Amino acid sequence: MAHDARERILGACERAIARAGIRGFRMQDVARDAGVSIGLLAYHFGDRDGLLQAALDHVTEQAADRASRSPNATTAVARLAALLCSEFGDDPEIRAGSTAWNELRALAVFEPAQATAVARSTAAWQARVRELVGEVAREHGRASRAPVNADTGRDVSTEANGDADALNLTALVEGLSGRWLTGQLTSAEAQAAVRSALLRLGY
Amino acid sequence: MAHDARERILGACERAIARAGIRGFRMQDVARDAGVSIGLLAYHFGDRDGLLQAALDHVTEQAADRASRSPNATTAVARLAALLCSEFGDDPEIRAGSTAWNELRALAVFEPAQATAVARSTAAWQARVRELVGEVAREHGRASRAPVNADTGRDVSTEANGDADALNLTALVEGLSGRWLTGQLTSAEAQAAVRSALLRLGY
Repeated sequence: MAHDARERILGACERAIARAGIRGFRMQDVARDAGVSIGLLAYHFGDRDGLLQAALDHVTEQAADRASRSPNATTAVARLAALLCSEFGDDPEIRAGSTAWNELRALAVFEPAQATAVARSTAAWQARVRELVGEVAREHGRASRAPVNADTGRDVSTEANGDADALNLTALVEGLSGRWLTGQLTSAEAQAAVRSALLRLGY
Repeated sequence: MAHDARERILGACERAIARAGIRGFRMQDVARDAGVSIGLLAYHFGDRDGLLQAALDHVTEQAADRASRSPNATTAVARLAALLCSEFGDDPEIRAGSTAWNELRALAVFEPAQATAVARSTAAWQARVRELVGEVAREHGRASRAPVNADTGRDVSTEANGDADALNLTALVEGLSGRWLTGQLTSAEAQAAVRSALLRLGY
């Protein structure tokens, strides 16, 4: 399948979930919105679970793609901030992707196939954040500086602390997404909270 | 309505949502499980939205109640950790409450009445966390100590930083809840992540 057809189908899938929730999700609506036959859709993504899993990965990839185009991301810490902040934005496509992700995570509490897909997609995203956390530590040569946290003597350059920070930051973004999607925070407020957390963690 | 009937109804409501999701939620099932008539249930909670809103507040109250019974919570920082960690646990009642909360937040993306209820319940919880953050700052007399964060010179005793930390910690717990409910973290791992974040924030 051509790359643009794949993009069109996954974008349509996210919009369909964002419009009516996972409860109102129909493969036919996705095919119609993407301008492809239901047969082509099924041929390439298999069943509903296959399409939903591809959509999860697509949301994560899209956010990483937006972050990579961020003009100010010239240092590792800027790339880390851009990746985390790219989960929020006023573009309808960003909101549709995040809404779809949120719905699929809610479904995953009840459906093992979705839980596996969510876990895999989350692990891939967290691994990318972990890489950037490691780049920040190397870039700043933190091992040779005073520990970041005056109270705890904690040093972000150790493996265990890098792992803990990657979990902390990605889980924080997921929590902030729920606040944003339910209108409790604007996208700018959610991004400010991410930047504040990064500063507080010593990044 | 007697306190125990109210507790029984709200407990039954959370179990019903945790069993079949908000999609399968029926007032009749709640009434039967709680051993009350559908008329009594409607009389006290009004319609479905009224019951769901009461259930949201109940989950938050239950977590605060568990935290207040924590035997080691003799300092403000221990009370803060206990409140945040009380959202996780292997007791089926804790999981049912968290699952219900997660479902209602997912619904809130699509239903304004639920969004209002989620925002109100979240604000009450975050305000309680904010109070404890303030108590920690006062208890430790942080204003007279070196700033917590060596890189940023940030001081947790200021109002703006206390507000930011309360948002950060509550959003983190919400993100960790999603990981826990979908089997990506155990309750012990989620609690360890909360304690790690508290240390990292200088609490």
